[in-house]
Amino acid sequence: MSLHGTYDPDNIFAKIVRGEIPSVKVFEDDEVLAFMDAFPQSKGHLLVISKTSKARNVLEAEPKTLGRLIGAVQKATRAVTAALEPDGVVVTQFNGAPAGQTVFHLHFHVIPRYEGEALGRHGGGMADIEELKALAAKISAAL
Amino acid sequence: MSLHGTYDPDNIFAKIVRGEIPSVKVFEDDEVLAFMDAFPQSKGHLLVISKTSKARNVLEAEPKTLGRLIGAVQKATRAVTAALEPDGVVVTQFNGAPAGQTVFHLHFHVIPRYEGEALGRHGGGMADIEELKALAAKISAAL
Repeated sequence: MSLHGTYDPDNIFAKIVRGEIPSVKVFEDDEVLAFMDAFPQSKGHLLVISKTSKARNVLEAEPKTLGRLIGAVQKATRAVTAALEPDGVVVTQFNGAPAGQTVFHLHFHVIPRYEGEALGRHGGGMADIEELKALAAKISAAL
Repeated sequence: MSLHGTYDPDNIFAKIVRGEIPSVKVFEDDEVLAFMDAFPQSKGHLLVISKTSKARNVLEAEPKTLGRLIGAVQKATRAVTAALEPDGVVVTQFNGAPAGQTVFHLHFHVIPRYEGEALGRHGGGMADIEELKALAAKISAAL
């Protein structure tokens, strides 16, 4: 899918927002949701999405949505840093399939990096849900 | 350099903001500056920085700084998309050396992706300045 097109209300993140499929949540409010990536590239890999916007990517986002999302990205980065003590954190946001976007609902990745550990391939394998729940509890506690 | 430490006022981006070393600018206002990465990973690779904040990374950023930066990232992404018609755009923001950060002044990368073209290695080689100026002019014209 290119940078041009229309929002699909049945994309997987829209379904997560509506509670039609489960997710391991870290925090949420009326507008944003942070949850564990089910196919993590490292320990503590989080996703931050809008619960209200129909933007597929940064090009389409309302200013208010962007502001709320980047605030939630900072909150998630601080919590994951406090909870898991990574050596670094990568924040990424992909626009369009050729850029690595696989779900066409605007989202930010918050990916902890640990010295000497290479990043896993995204989609390389689904995480153990109990393990994700334990990580989410630890990160939530550091909010 | 880890996630912890102090801001070095003589980092390369601080020098660019002060005009002590040259850069190929795309747009700026009192608070933000978008300029061409001198070691681009793809055609049109831009950097977006704050001109006023002493934050080294997203952990340290003031809410207002983050809001202004993400707005400028959107502006840069829209302009580069209109000017160069990439197939996708990657936005990245690195925190800490183990995450890939090399300049410890908060910054966002805006990296166009073109179908069938792999990303160059960052720091693989310095770009031709005249070529960067031509790209910057094209992107500026699409603002």
